[in-house]
Amino acid sequence: DLPLTLIAGPCQLETRQHAFDMAGALKEIATRLGIGLVYKSSFDKANRTSLGGKRGAGLDAALPIFADIKKDLGLPILTDVHTEEQCALAGEVVDILQIPAFLCRQTDLLVAAARTGKVVNIKKGQFLAPWDMKNVVAKVTESGNANVLTTERGVSFGYNTLVSDMRALPVLRQIGAPVVFDATHSVQQPGGQGGSSGGDRRYVETLARAAVAVGVSAVFIETHQDPDHAPSDGPNMVRLGDMEALLTRLTAFDRVAKQASPS
Amino acid sequence: DLPLTLIAGPCQLETRQHAFDMAGALKEIATRLGIGLVYKSSFDKANRTSLGGKRGAGLDAALPIFADIKKDLGLPILTDVHTEEQCALAGEVVDILQIPAFLCRQTDLLVAAARTGKVVNIKKGQFLAPWDMKNVVAKVTESGNANVLTTERGVSFGYNTLVSDMRALPVLRQIGAPVVFDATHSVQQPGGQGGSSGGDRRYVETLARAAVAVGVSAVFIETHQDPDHAPSDGPNMVRLGDMEALLTRLTAFDRVAKQASPS
Amino acid sequence: DLPLTLIAGPCQLETRQHAFDMAGALKEIATRLGIGLVYKSSFDKANRTSLGGKRGAGLDAALPIFADIKKDLGLPILTDVHTEEQCALAGEVVDILQIPAFLCRQTDLLVAAARTGKVVNIKKGQFLAPWDMKNVVAKVTESGNANVLTTERGVSFGYNTLVSDMRALPVLRQIGAPVVFDATHSVQQPGGQGGSSGGDRRYVETLARAAVAVGVSAVFIETHQDPDHAPSDGPNMVRLGDMEALLTRLTAFDRVAKQASPS
Amino acid sequence: DLPLTLIAGPCQLETRQHAFDMAGALKEIATRLGIGLVYKSSFDKANRTSLGGKRGAGLDAALPIFADIKKDLGLPILTDVHTEEQCALAGEVVDILQIPAFLCRQTDLLVAAARTGKVVNIKKGQFLAPWDMKNVVAKVTESGNANVLTTERGVSFGYNTLVSDMRALPVLRQIGAPVVFDATHSVQQPGGQGGSSGGDRRYVETLARAAVAVGVSAVFIETHQDPDHAPSDGPNMVRLGDMEALLTRLTAFDRVAKQASPS
Repeated sequence: DLPLTLIAGPCQLETRQHAFDMAGALKEIATRLGIGLVYKSSFDKANRTSLGGKRGAGLDAALPIFADIKKDLGLPILTDVHTEEQCALAGEVVDILQIPAFLCRQTDLLVAAARTGKVVNIKKGQFLAPWDMKNVVAKVTESGNANVLTTERGVSFGYNTLVSDMRALPVLRQIGAPVVFDATHSVQQPGGQGGSSGGDRRYVETLARAAVAVGVSAVFIETHQDPDHAPSDGPNMVRLGDMEALLTRLTAFDRVAKQASPS
Repeated sequence: DLPLTLIAGPCQLETRQHAFDMAGALKEIATRLGIGLVYKSSFDKANRTSLGGKRGAGLDAALPIFADIKKDLGLPILTDVHTEEQCALAGEVVDILQIPAFLCRQTDLLVAAARTGKVVNIKKGQFLAPWDMKNVVAKVTESGNANVLTTERGVSFGYNTLVSDMRALPVLRQIGAPVVFDATHSVQQPGGQGGSSGGDRRYVETLARAAVAVGVSAVFIETHQDPDHAPSDGPNMVRLGDMEALLTRLTAFDRVAKQASPS
Repeated sequence: DLPLTLIAGPCQLETRQHAFDMAGALKEIATRLGIGLVYKSSFDKANRTSLGGKRGAGLDAALPIFADIKKDLGLPILTDVHTEEQCALAGEVVDILQIPAFLCRQTDLLVAAARTGKVVNIKKGQFLAPWDMKNVVAKVTESGNANVLTTERGVSFGYNTLVSDMRALPVLRQIGAPVVFDATHSVQQPGGQGGSSGGDRRYVETLARAAVAVGVSAVFIETHQDPDHAPSDGPNMVRLGDMEALLTRLTAFDRVAKQASPS
Repeated sequence: DLPLTLIAGPCQLETRQHAFDMAGALKEIATRLGIGLVYKSSFDKANRTSLGGKRGAGLDAALPIFADIKKDLGLPILTDVHTEEQCALAGEVVDILQIPAFLCRQTDLLVAAARTGKVVNIKKGQFLAPWDMKNVVAKVTESGNANVLTTERGVSFGYNTLVSDMRALPVLRQIGAPVVFDATHSVQQPGGQGGSSGGDRRYVETLARAAVAVGVSAVFIETHQDPDHAPSDGPNMVRLGDMEALLTRLTAFDRVAKQASPS
């Protein structure tokens, strides 16, 4: 089993400078810890709680920035796509196309992502049982693309709350694709702040430790130098300044988990 | 309060003949019962459980059939849309554009549907609290279209199960848009049959009675002359031959509910 | 199918005078509406959220009052029991022994209640599926007492919330015992007010209408002349002054339901 | 932070010989691993799914055996109590009185357990939010006994399923009492086998690893030399022969967790 990879970045692309600052800082941390890093950022938040929520820079503005981060910093890039058209365009630049959880059953989107040949990271819907991801993954692999990741990010538990069922991780692993644990969206409180979603970043480490001990290929952690002023997902993002200590602890658990073989 | 309206039809458009047969039979029932009828059918099932599930006739084939049912039978038509492009095209023919539950947070889709000026029926996501629909409805009304319906169709309850919270109906009503209760999707067991979704049509009447007694503007009931051989949603559709007796009972409850004013 | 019976009373026995006032007022309403009435009151609230919550008059003080209400007003009495010892004592006076939801799996309590020969009303645990009540009911019937009622009072749905699954009513009915719907505990928010449980009486009518339309033998409604100053369950009890109008509406739905045969 | 303690034993007391065999084998494992051990066994299964389920040896038969295991093997003993009377009797022999999850809100039972002066281990009800345990713990501490443990054992998630919310562990810890994770009841499927509860022991290690990495004082694991023929809880008990390897892995995670300070 390979050591833990980190998928991290700010929830949405703000400016070229901000993106380079974040990617640079994360690269230094990952290098010091000896772990892989995929830089994550969204060019469009297509399903904000309300119409007034900031949506991001847009695909046209984002792709050249992604291309430059990739070239200048040598980092693979992950971004999420919402339409078939975006798959082909984003697929020319980024390394991993991510299917948002709400869209994980949209066949045409999955097939379009598959056809780019890029890695497809499918977030498990908040409304899905982990075993139901088998059919979802098959929509990509039967379209000729075996490079699939699945991501656990919590399941609906009453209203405005998610719960992370750690049993989902071995169930997803049995499907055959590497499993990612999204530690920041898992602490979201969907719609929990009226006009936006809430969250509780105090539990990011709780859930990340649990998932790493169970055994995952990667953790997904959104981060920002000042989350409380970030344009989206502030309540659940981890402060950039807390990332290295958090990851130091997670890699210690990962080493035990990888020695022990996954549960 | 106006009497109950029926939104009904087979889950997916099969053939022109089948559509006319179903629409004609439903029109006779609605006429005998003195209730309004909207004919519902999908041209594309875009989020089947697995890649092999039948998807339907497609938009190009469906629109002329919808137009002819509308003209020949005088019935308003409802269909669901999955992309911005489909909104404009379908909006030229049908009367009500329906936003699927999984897509109810996709801002661009809601705005595109709103811009057609047609009635927009938004299904509440299985992952949403009823009060969260306020922001969803506002995405349409703030785009200049006040003709919105909301539809309750169950909320995630553990794995592979939905539950219908009847308190959601008055909560939705307070948002200001007429409320529809979808009695057939509410008994779905998502992913519950491995490669397809299960359901239990025995409970359609249970939930429909409950919702009508609480007070709704319309019930949504998918129906088929032979549900066990229908290309999708068979386990939860009501047999066409059972519809008139079911609706007779529902309208009796509706009369009491409308006299009593909604709960 | 017999018309709806009402099981009602204040959550806990306060004083002799209060009990007679409440029972007398409820009897007048039931007589005017032509429905059966069972007077409900607790002598001990054995599972208050916190140690400081008022627990009630106690069994010794309560039994003579129950006996006098029964004799003077001619009303059958229901009270809840928490230990084997209480079953025998309460069973000498009251007509229906009620097993609290948290205790519905305690074999010795069920058997002791069964052995009194009185009617046993078992509340379905918030942690139980409706079909699991089959084994619970059998613990009473296999102890030689066929006089069992089952009561639906909501199921856990995330934290601090219950949801009422209306499908539970026909599932419970198939077990063979008459089904009661507890409309006031179903709107409880367990622990939702820190040191006590919250609730939302606005939805009592919503859920009661739904259940009556589905078809039940009785509704259980806790009531108080001044719920906001009641010693327990205030947030979910119905104002005594609202009971007659509420019951008038419920009996109208019940007449339709009983004509239609249960769903 | 102290190293992990193990609370383990067969679900129910079978015979004196069986109890000594199990306790002896567990003591050897704990000694080799250098961890503390509390021997757990039930003298009565008071809430079996159905009347026919085996209930155990009874209190009178069990207490002398518990006393001898304590004396001969030097192990502290934990058993669960269901009535006030049992508290005083069991409290003369055992070291930890355990309050079953279904009974965790029963005030008189908690107070009676508190008054023995023994450690009281309260299992969190499947229907409770973790923060609601604050009031439950206070029922014991305000009765003059500060020796309280709380145990997480899963929360209701739809029907016949529990989910383990790892965020519950830090929430419980903040109440101030040491936190135990019950890894075998957390994989129960309540009522899931018709006449008895099911479970899935494949996920015991998954959940135990997760909880230990988050940080707990003890893990609770029911075990049996032949679980598939055990009189109760077979589907979720761990084979005795698998315990040492499992605990070796758990203690490795515990060392990392205790160095890191709890999440």
